[in-house]
Amino acid sequence: MSVEAPPPELERRPDGEGSKTDDGKPAEDKTLYGVSPDVVERARKAIEEGKLDQIEKLVDELHPADFADLLQELTPDERKLIIKVCRHILEPETLNYLDEVVREEVMGLMSPGEVAQAVSELETDDAVDILEDLDEDEKRRILQAIPAEDRAVIEQGLTYPEDSAGRLMQRDLVAVPQHWTVGEAIDYLRANQDLPDDFYDLFVVDPMHKPIGAVPLSRAMRNERIAKLEDLMHTEFRAVSATMDQESVAYLFRQYGLMSAPVVDEAGRLLGVITVDDVVHVIEEETEEDLLGIVGVSETDFHAPPLETAWRRVRWLVVTLCNSAIASTVILQFEATIQQIVALAILMPIVAAMGGNAGVQVITVMVRALATRDLQPRGSNIWRVVGKEIAVAAVNAAVFALIMGTVASFFFGIPIGLVLGAAVIFNMIWAGIAGTVIPLTLARFNIDPAIGAGPFLTTTTDVFGFFSFLGLATLFLL
Amino acid sequence: MSVEAPPPELERRPDGEGSKTDDGKPAEDKTLYGVSPDVVERARKAIEEGKLDQIEKLVDELHPADFADLLQELTPDERKLIIKVCRHILEPETLNYLDEVVREEVMGLMSPGEVAQAVSELETDDAVDILEDLDEDEKRRILQAIPAEDRAVIEQGLTYPEDSAGRLMQRDLVAVPQHWTVGEAIDYLRANQDLPDDFYDLFVVDPMHKPIGAVPLSRAMRNERIAKLEDLMHTEFRAVSATMDQESVAYLFRQYGLMSAPVVDEAGRLLGVITVDDVVHVIEEETEEDLLGIVGVSETDFHAPPLETAWRRVRWLVVTLCNSAIASTVILQFEATIQQIVALAILMPIVAAMGGNAGVQVITVMVRALATRDLQPRGSNIWRVVGKEIAVAAVNAAVFALIMGTVASFFFGIPIGLVLGAAVIFNMIWAGIAGTVIPLTLARFNIDPAIGAGPFLTTTTDVFGFFSFLGLATLFLL
Repeated sequence: MSVEAPPPELERRPDGEGSKTDDGKPAEDKTLYGVSPDVVERARKAIEEGKLDQIEKLVDELHPADFADLLQELTPDERKLIIKVCRHILEPETLNYLDEVVREEVMGLMSPGEVAQAVSELETDDAVDILEDLDEDEKRRILQAIPAEDRAVIEQGLTYPEDSAGRLMQRDLVAVPQHWTVGEAIDYLRANQDLPDDFYDLFVVDPMHKPIGAVPLSRAMRNERIAKLEDLMHTEFRAVSATMDQESVAYLFRQYGLMSAPVVDEAGRLLGVITVDDVVHVIEEETEEDLLGIVGVSETDFHAPPLETAWRRVRWLVVTLCNSAIASTVILQFEATIQQIVALAILMPIVAAMGGNAGVQVITVMVRALATRDLQPRGSNIWRVVGKEIAVAAVNAAVFALIMGTVASFFFGIPIGLVLGAAVIFNMIWAGIAGTVIPLTLARFNIDPAIGAGPFLTTTTDVFGFFSFLGLATLFLL
Repeated sequence: MSVEAPPPELERRPDGEGSKTDDGKPAEDKTLYGVSPDVVERARKAIEEGKLDQIEKLVDELHPADFADLLQELTPDERKLIIKVCRHILEPETLNYLDEVVREEVMGLMSPGEVAQAVSELETDDAVDILEDLDEDEKRRILQAIPAEDRAVIEQGLTYPEDSAGRLMQRDLVAVPQHWTVGEAIDYLRANQDLPDDFYDLFVVDPMHKPIGAVPLSRAMRNERIAKLEDLMHTEFRAVSATMDQESVAYLFRQYGLMSAPVVDEAGRLLGVITVDDVVHVIEEETEEDLLGIVGVSETDFHAPPLETAWRRVRWLVVTLCNSAIASTVILQFEATIQQIVALAILMPIVAAMGGNAGVQVITVMVRALATRDLQPRGSNIWRVVGKEIAVAAVNAAVFALIMGTVASFFFGIPIGLVLGAAVIFNMIWAGIAGTVIPLTLARFNIDPAIGAGPFLTTTTDVFGFFSFLGLATLFLL
């Protein structure tokens, strides 16, 4: 039996999405979930033909995450029409799923009252997430339209530093006193209407409202009504301070496989809770940031308009320009040598490229090890790590110097082959040293080792590569 | 009041970890959690001095995740001793937290019986995770030492394809018939000892054991005993097929912010459950893989021994060598031109570097957009995306051509400046085209657009850059 989509009763979704794609892969992997090209096509056609009821029906069937994706695939004009038609059925969560650029556009199409209404229906962390990106005027206008009680909670959320645990947390949680029994907790949950929609732990607090333990719901349900929460709670949960950086929060969740963690204020009082689903996108973001820095890209700008995208990319292009200008200055010093042996101009990019790639390999491993805290900038294993990388560099340098030297000897004569081999050895070992020392040094000074590590490094390998190759040639071949 | 670590009663951890670091940052961000350099130092000293009881005490206080980190920071000899001393208090989860290379080493220090004992205590997904990396002989030896019932479950887990939902899922879950009430479910949970440690949903199944809905525990607890589960369950959960690729599973969890998802077999029957904490590392891994491919690094090899690391990196160095050799062949064609105008050799790396960086920026955005399904290889917005990237490339190309042309004119004369400017325009626009078309084409043929996209691309920008610059110079300057 071939692997097909899960049985239809499991899923309510627009028809047509479960169909096989024409490249033979089972449908599940490509179009089972999310917005299929087919849905986008139908939406587009309905917009074009002005069939408003069809648009509404289609949007109504979509999960907010999918509706957000649909909006992002459309042109600004199409978005305008669809929002106009569907503003009354727009689920507030849709805003959270939108990319920042498109979200701003969509919110511009709604009245402040409508935005306020949507924001006040969201959980605190999602509401804060939307408001934090707005400019002061807009933020104030929307906040004023939100009911006082919700507003106070959101405003407090906004007082925490950007990218802190305070911004990630939900204020809604279930805290119970330590002397309660399972039965009392259940009765409280049944009687109290003002509780979060879904939660996974009961937090046990002392009279000062400091968390002293957590009882997973499954544990509470499996015990008799007379069991004391105090006896069921585990005390090994990890509390985070509201000002903790979200990167550290992500580290905690990943390191200990947490499902949720209580957030406390400076006095240790329970403020809110962070659940793992809030952290998933932080982990993804942080991983992405690490690696984008190495490539020399600031951020993904898929949804930004062309001019803004062009501007965002200028910074790294300027860095590249400066790097290569420095490398060119080095070459300039050896103008006379190149004039006499043009083969050098032909071979020099190879020396630089090999050093650059070897160095980027090392730096990538270092940056990830620092991010996952396998490596600490003041750890006792630093010298072992640096030593290993230099050993690795030396081995590969020897192998590639032999290959490249032999091939170059064949085409350009043995002296040039020898110089090339020597330069490759120097530059690849240099790459091993620079690839470990640069990120470790940046990390020691509390500078993000990813940002700029890559461009920094390739400048050094370019300069060192050109210098050693052309320098050795000048010394021995002229 | 300064931000300090959470109050001491929240945390049981070895003393010394909460201290402030000497660079003035609050301790929380750096050493509050995880293994601090101080703990590693103490462990090392205890090992050196042979104080076995101290080692045991120290390890006993550590979370398995932290113990795994400690093991990874030590040398193989130190690891050997610590395992010898602590094998009787080793928590099975420690193995899951270890890097593959170190895990193999540690398991080599244990007897098959000990490993079997540890594996059988783990949840299915964790047990499978450990066994799947072993060679056949070892796997069989360990499986034979596991009690028959546990073995059957693990063996079934191993039958699912690598990196599939079946490997990620836990078999332990709570499934209840649809006619049950909250009260019946609670009684069942209280009476039944053979249930998973922690769970978050009750899965409602029909008589064929097909899942028809899920009741979050919080909802079950908040309703009266007489409420029917059927009325409480939500039916919008996302079921995944056991053979679904883990990348798709990760996409689902991220797209819809899921906490858990039921896994079903080909007939739609409930097999197991995947929870978000199992998916966190998949999301991280997939993000990392995407971006590592662009940089031209296969995988992080922090814990691999030097020779193995050297070997793992050879592949990308060979790719780099071939790329730069191709570029050199292009330069070779213009040997005579360079002989006459050495300035070309000085400037040509700049043209190649600008094209390369611009192209990598584009390709990174494309690869991430494809991975997050913002962009689909057959989506209707492809031409808009390609058009935007070419527009962005044209704008930046014009700006940088003007700057670089002007500067080069100043140093090397106007003709060379004009040729440089023209070559930069050509190469950066080419980078925009290649940066969109290469990943989209690879994705269309179901090849991972990340793998090889980077090196592919820079070869084209190097070749195109050298060719256009030296070609234009040959045409107009000789």
